[in-house]
Amino acid sequence: MSADSTTTVPEFVSRHIGPREDDVTRMLEVIGQPSVEELIARTAPAAILGGPSLALEGAPTEQAVTDELRAIADRNQVKTSLIGLGYYGTVTPPVVRRNVLENPAWYTAYTPYQPEISQGRLEALLNFQTMVNDLTGLDIANSSLLDEGTAAAEAMTLMRRSSKAAKDAVLLVDEQVLPQSYAVIASRALPLGIQVERLDLSSVTTAEGLLEASGGKGVFGVLVQYPGADGEVRDWRALAEAAHEAKALVTAATDLLALTLLTPPGEWGADIAVGNSQRFGVPMGFGGPHAGFMSVRKGLERSMPGRLVGVSVDEVGAPAYRLALQTREQHIRREKATSNICTAQVLLAVMASMYAVWHGPEGLRRIAERVQRHTAAARQALVAASVDVRTQHQFDTLTVSVPGRADAVMAAALERDLNLWRVDADTVQLSFDETTDRAQVAAVVESFGASFSGAVPGDLAPSWPEALTRTSDYLTHPVFSAHHSETAMMRYLRRLADKDYALDRGMIPLGSCTMKLNATTELEPITWPEFSSLHPFVPTDQSAGSRQIVSDLQQWLVEITGYDAVSMQPNSGASGELAGLMAIRAYHRANGQEERNVCLIPSSAHGTNAASAVMAGFKVVVVKSTAGGSVDMEDLRGKVKEHCEVLAAIMVTYPSTHGVYEDTIVELCELVHEAGGQVYVDGANMNALVGVARPGKFGADVSHLNLHKTFCIPHGGGGPGVGPIGVRSHLAPYLPNHPLAPEAGPETATGPAASAPYGSASILPISWAYIRLMGGEGLRRATLAAVLNANYVAARLRDHYPVLYSQDGLVAHECILDLRGITHDTGVTVDDVAKRLIDYGFHAPTMSFPVAGTLMVEPTESEDLVELDRFCDAMIAIKTEIDQVGSGEVAADASVLRHAPYTAESLAGDWDYGFDRRTAAFPAGVDPRSKYWPSVRRIDGAYGDRNLICTCPPPEAFADND
Amino acid sequence: MSADSTTTVPEFVSRHIGPREDDVTRMLEVIGQPSVEELIARTAPAAILGGPSLALEGAPTEQAVTDELRAIADRNQVKTSLIGLGYYGTVTPPVVRRNVLENPAWYTAYTPYQPEISQGRLEALLNFQTMVNDLTGLDIANSSLLDEGTAAAEAMTLMRRSSKAAKDAVLLVDEQVLPQSYAVIASRALPLGIQVERLDLSSVTTAEGLLEASGGKGVFGVLVQYPGADGEVRDWRALAEAAHEAKALVTAATDLLALTLLTPPGEWGADIAVGNSQRFGVPMGFGGPHAGFMSVRKGLERSMPGRLVGVSVDEVGAPAYRLALQTREQHIRREKATSNICTAQVLLAVMASMYAVWHGPEGLRRIAERVQRHTAAARQALVAASVDVRTQHQFDTLTVSVPGRADAVMAAALERDLNLWRVDADTVQLSFDETTDRAQVAAVVESFGASFSGAVPGDLAPSWPEALTRTSDYLTHPVFSAHHSETAMMRYLRRLADKDYALDRGMIPLGSCTMKLNATTELEPITWPEFSSLHPFVPTDQSAGSRQIVSDLQQWLVEITGYDAVSMQPNSGASGELAGLMAIRAYHRANGQEERNVCLIPSSAHGTNAASAVMAGFKVVVVKSTAGGSVDMEDLRGKVKEHCEVLAAIMVTYPSTHGVYEDTIVELCELVHEAGGQVYVDGANMNALVGVARPGKFGADVSHLNLHKTFCIPHGGGGPGVGPIGVRSHLAPYLPNHPLAPEAGPETATGPAASAPYGSASILPISWAYIRLMGGEGLRRATLAAVLNANYVAARLRDHYPVLYSQDGLVAHECILDLRGITHDTGVTVDDVAKRLIDYGFHAPTMSFPVAGTLMVEPTESEDLVELDRFCDAMIAIKTEIDQVGSGEVAADASVLRHAPYTAESLAGDWDYGFDRRTAAFPAGVDPRSKYWPSVRRIDGAYGDRNLICTCPPPEAFADND
Repeated sequence: MSADSTTTVPEFVSRHIGPREDDVTRMLEVIGQPSVEELIARTAPAAILGGPSLALEGAPTEQAVTDELRAIADRNQVKTSLIGLGYYGTVTPPVVRRNVLENPAWYTAYTPYQPEISQGRLEALLNFQTMVNDLTGLDIANSSLLDEGTAAAEAMTLMRRSSKAAKDAVLLVDEQVLPQSYAVIASRALPLGIQVERLDLSSVTTAEGLLEASGGKGVFGVLVQYPGADGEVRDWRALAEAAHEAKALVTAATDLLALTLLTPPGEWGADIAVGNSQRFGVPMGFGGPHAGFMSVRKGLERSMPGRLVGVSVDEVGAPAYRLALQTREQHIRREKATSNICTAQVLLAVMASMYAVWHGPEGLRRIAERVQRHTAAARQALVAASVDVRTQHQFDTLTVSVPGRADAVMAAALERDLNLWRVDADTVQLSFDETTDRAQVAAVVESFGASFSGAVPGDLAPSWPEALTRTSDYLTHPVFSAHHSETAMMRYLRRLADKDYALDRGMIPLGSCTMKLNATTELEPITWPEFSSLHPFVPTDQSAGSRQIVSDLQQWLVEITGYDAVSMQPNSGASGELAGLMAIRAYHRANGQEERNVCLIPSSAHGTNAASAVMAGFKVVVVKSTAGGSVDMEDLRGKVKEHCEVLAAIMVTYPSTHGVYEDTIVELCELVHEAGGQVYVDGANMNALVGVARPGKFGADVSHLNLHKTFCIPHGGGGPGVGPIGVRSHLAPYLPNHPLAPEAGPETATGPAASAPYGSASILPISWAYIRLMGGEGLRRATLAAVLNANYVAARLRDHYPVLYSQDGLVAHECILDLRGITHDTGVTVDDVAKRLIDYGFHAPTMSFPVAGTLMVEPTESEDLVELDRFCDAMIAIKTEIDQVGSGEVAADASVLRHAPYTAESLAGDWDYGFDRRTAAFPAGVDPRSKYWPSVRRIDGAYGDRNLICTCPPPEAFADND
Repeated sequence: MSADSTTTVPEFVSRHIGPREDDVTRMLEVIGQPSVEELIARTAPAAILGGPSLALEGAPTEQAVTDELRAIADRNQVKTSLIGLGYYGTVTPPVVRRNVLENPAWYTAYTPYQPEISQGRLEALLNFQTMVNDLTGLDIANSSLLDEGTAAAEAMTLMRRSSKAAKDAVLLVDEQVLPQSYAVIASRALPLGIQVERLDLSSVTTAEGLLEASGGKGVFGVLVQYPGADGEVRDWRALAEAAHEAKALVTAATDLLALTLLTPPGEWGADIAVGNSQRFGVPMGFGGPHAGFMSVRKGLERSMPGRLVGVSVDEVGAPAYRLALQTREQHIRREKATSNICTAQVLLAVMASMYAVWHGPEGLRRIAERVQRHTAAARQALVAASVDVRTQHQFDTLTVSVPGRADAVMAAALERDLNLWRVDADTVQLSFDETTDRAQVAAVVESFGASFSGAVPGDLAPSWPEALTRTSDYLTHPVFSAHHSETAMMRYLRRLADKDYALDRGMIPLGSCTMKLNATTELEPITWPEFSSLHPFVPTDQSAGSRQIVSDLQQWLVEITGYDAVSMQPNSGASGELAGLMAIRAYHRANGQEERNVCLIPSSAHGTNAASAVMAGFKVVVVKSTAGGSVDMEDLRGKVKEHCEVLAAIMVTYPSTHGVYEDTIVELCELVHEAGGQVYVDGANMNALVGVARPGKFGADVSHLNLHKTFCIPHGGGGPGVGPIGVRSHLAPYLPNHPLAPEAGPETATGPAASAPYGSASILPISWAYIRLMGGEGLRRATLAAVLNANYVAARLRDHYPVLYSQDGLVAHECILDLRGITHDTGVTVDDVAKRLIDYGFHAPTMSFPVAGTLMVEPTESEDLVELDRFCDAMIAIKTEIDQVGSGEVAADASVLRHAPYTAESLAGDWDYGFDRRTAAFPAGVDPRSKYWPSVRRIDGAYGDRNLICTCPPPEAFADND
């Protein structure tokens, strides 16, 4: 009946996709194609097109999707989890939840590669670094890592690189290191040939003892947990001294809250500290995402993986933040990279830093003291009831010996809505946290059959050795004391957000980064307690809802990619790459082909590919590109032939990083398969394939997907990312698994890719909602719109900037604007154009990747024609400005381009430029009433690298110098 | 035990209150008082202090309050309500919910009295006006009224003022006008001596018929509902012509969604349209708040009540929005006012306008057509089953005759989770809406014992007469077509928000307006479906949670105010005033003292007081103020004596509008009581009393409170407000009641104050949470901090600006800075200072109220010392700028003050001022990196009033003229 007639395409599709129907017609005219279907047919090779349409039903309305998710959420059971093991209950300050986690100004921002328009989150990240430095007692912290396990694995390789110990020296891991961290380390160590020994280090206090523990091989690194997984606070000072004597480095995996009371690792001799900042206001979220951290002593900073925010100066000498030491990053070093770390956990690091800003040093100490007292009270009551508490010097965790009674205690706790941790049949463990109250302490004690009627205050003082009681100050920078009222905090968050440019202001046309809409309906469920409050190791019946999200997504991604199995565990694209390559490695070994260790990578590949290949134990062999930008098939044939005995894999991005659907992809897959190799298709550009072609069907064996690109998880200002991998069935036995969650992966795998069984589980509802909101047909339309938008931009700009690598004048979902000729002729650089775009109200496209001297534009399907035209008009206007240089009218150094961007402040001062203020600040097309203003002028990155400052500068540094 | 020791004051108290403990000491030094307790003791009269401390327990944590509210919310049952009667299911666009309703940039804004820093919400309101104009087919709409019932009552008085009919002519109300609207009208008509006749007007088509219907008295106005409450779409054209012939005006109460399909009232002859925009994306919320609307034909605009946004020009001739015709407003006209309307429903009007922006004309039409088809389908199925459907020409509502079976049908519907409306034992009514789907249509039909197996599409066309089918266009302005993708909408909302200054940017020190923190924990629950989705007329067992919020708040406000009973119904302060005065009126009449009709009002009172008194049928007699700003007790004694036989009441604000605790308050109350009068204490300044003194105990009989001032409901950019009244027991029988909800008020009352039984019920959880978060002691501390902050500002500024009306150098919770001498000596005006404050990053204090030529500053307790100092420093710096004029160095007209504020754009152009750009835009204390920029220069209000434009100007109007 017509009253109910629903079109087959959900209404949301027209909310997600930018161009209106009328616009499409006009855009096709500009491109010179009759229809979007024709456009895709002429752009992508026929060999990959076709296949059945996606069997994914879209929900009729946004409300229907919310209702479905509500029902799924209700399948989770939210109990009080005292499981600990790196994940703790915490209170997200409501002002932070609303103004950061639920605010598009924060969550839709991109990685702060354009620092002039990212000063807000860079300041928040600098706060994070300062917080980690202060609390760990070390000198330099990065601005987050993926999680504690991968941070520990990064510490392993950092120690290996930095230690002068023998080549076959081993890593010693104390047995009280978190089990999932150890599993990640062990898995990562395998392909690198690093030997890891796990043992009780608590009594090792001499270099000789260490040597002995290493089986005589020597030790390059020691990893301890502080406090231990069992809750014991141990004094590792002697071990650290012994390690240093033995040329080994020492890493402490540690807990930021405990460090408000405990002597920090940097003060007892650790070289590196790693951990998870989750309990600083970030919900457990069934495992993630959270911001892992790493800090190091001076001297190690230039080897440290991950992003580092530092202080530099801008064009007029004012202090300004930006990412420091970017030359260390994997995208520069490629196969010489020491880490494939790419994404950070910016949004979560921002939240954790704001938790510290909100509570300040005294507030954090009060929280820690309460946790400590609750734990001591529980211990006291248990001991009074003759229960055998193993932990002697506890902060928040007690290990309790209950011979034969562990299951009974667990059951008694569960009756009280408490999850404890069953270590074994005779042992139970529990951890208190910020949310613990007296009633919970009583319930815990009662679960052990003891009774709790209060506690003797005198016995609640810390029980650890006095040498481990912290005496040094922390968080002394004024920012940690200035914003303790909600009003002040709200304004601080607004002030920072206002400095930044995010998707809520305008287009971020970053090639390969797919900055599309992150719809509200997709985002809202992630702050529901049912999804955000689960501990990752809850009993499986409590996580039925979250695991349904995982399994639904797995099935849907199988349908979309054409693969046979999917793992949701990798918590970044790079992590997915590594996991995929590890699966290939395991597969070859299972087939007795250990010798297969060559990974072919086209020269145009993203640097991460090579870095991941190295981490997976492969030798990288580069395949040339043709002048047209495609894989040089001739060269490929040669390389395949040359390495056919040892060929492990090829890694290609499809569509290519040049933004074209190479028509040789099927042939390429066949070639590699014939030589016994596996094909890894990097899914970074999956946005141009969904609903159009399935890599698992056109020849690939494995891909990672970027849920934060293709499937609408917001970039969060530089993370979280989610990088699930899809594989064909022969690789499925080697998908990641997890030591504490057998249901999370195959027994046959080599280990986990991340600390949590399902990675960043709490944000998976975003992608789930996206797929349900769009349905198969909607997803296909999104892909076609993405290709349409890119071709429209290419068509409009072609006469002004050469478009690289188009095929018959057409591109895929992004286009590369070649500025090399312009730079050669005029001296105007890619940087000049990128910074000038800020004045026009845009985030720059990707700069100099994959080709130096170019800009890569990916508008995505979510931009409408008005915004596309605004961008094209800006680029054309900039070309006019360039032409003034080209014609000799203006010197490049004196041009409006070279000094861009312009702050509002710059207009108020003297004006010595050869162009007027209006030309600088309000070029054509800019609405003066809605202009976005950068807060600093162009930043001198090199200055900051020469003068490395990575903690908050004193307020005086920003004093007006006039 | 110490592990659990909770201080008696919840942690939240220190989050709500700005000054830190250390700051308080420093502030007291500046004020010259030893402690805050001493401060209050020296500020407020001993006679009102004392009394037991508030017996209100604070919750220990914010999470605990959220948990309690969660449990209360769960007591509500959310079913599908097809009750209609002015309230309908609707889908709030998620992008609007997140970016408006949950965004402090929108909800913490103040009324746009400072238009230069309010261009964003003024544009949104202009969109609202354009939407209402277009859909109703009339010429000028205001920017919202409180609800449909009060809008209809305002239409009544507007018609009375504008009609040339005889003095005793009557108002005719069609019997199909919504029952609650009629009840509000009837209640409002009483004290005004207006006779209202309710009857079936459907067959009246001649002037003679009208005269007859009026009993020969003549008719000044006719009110019809279009479509009628029974669902019938009637053609009122002939009635309208007859009314005009009889010198009567015609008001159509109408439905915006229906008007996308129906000939608009303006096209069939209505002079006025009123209604509720709720179903445009604003949740039903158990009755409110929603934006009522009114539009009028040309010629009536200058008599129209409420706020009107219009277009004017700024200092440089650029178009700019501001409130038009402000001289009409009650605060200027006082006892000559024709309405006491003060607050609007800005936040809800913004949401409704954005709903129209989101859907556009075609989208709205599609929604309306679906509703119409669903209704027609249900009708068809019922008729096919021989059910007697009374409604012949329906849009969304059917009245169904089910002799003797109404209860059975209602029960059958309830089994299907549907609420219908029981008209009487033989009649059931139901209304479909945007959220209706086929399954609900089927369930409705089945509830009547019929079956639904689809429908014949041909029969689903509109059944109303062709003359009532709309043929005119609507929403043709581009804004209604430009933002249909979520990305575009999100950016539009951000762009508008960025133009405005709200509490999330800095202090809004508005005297008497109490712009305090609106905490996230207080705000979050209002978007929970359990609170937001209830129809106001659901069966009481479904609203147990919401009614608990009401009754808890009533009890707590009784405890706080010392009154005996509280009504939560009035949905603004002015509405509360009127309800309170109506209770006094009813009380005197119940005592046989109808002659008591004089209301004494001090000359310093807010204009609303006098307007409300007039509306309550009182004669206003003004009492003089002393030079010190207090009520002139001598004059009062004289006036009381003079009017003692007819004295009805006195209305005083306490502390006074001058910001002092007058020590004569107890005596004043006694004087009036002795003369048989009642004491109305305006609760606008209750923020200086909570926890310190109880008006119900020091002599007052009734007060309204402003939950949007004292109890943390955000101002929403100019509404919603909530104005509950507290009364002593003798007035309790006269609190508002409701025709459809007997439990909502006493039978003995004269009627409702608002359309909904509990007024703006959906936002009451905000105040509930605030009181629970603070507890009695926290509330008292807030009051002391408010007084401390005001005295600190007074102390710091006293040497620079005279502080009016302080007692022994002390003020209450606000202070008046006297600029009259400065203006006299230098020509620099209050306006100059207010606009100059924008350049320093502040919203101006209240201007020229209660004393012309002054600024009234109320910092509230939520501002911390840093912000207070920033404000004082700015005021002192401005004084230095004034001194340059005073010393003759600069002429006032040429001064930096006179041309303030400065936009960023202004810096880019030519600069002909005698001061430099930096002086203008970056005065001392302004951080150039975080500066707030107004989007227009100083606005010429008079120009706009002379050239009244109250709909969206075409985009070309904003084209750059350079």
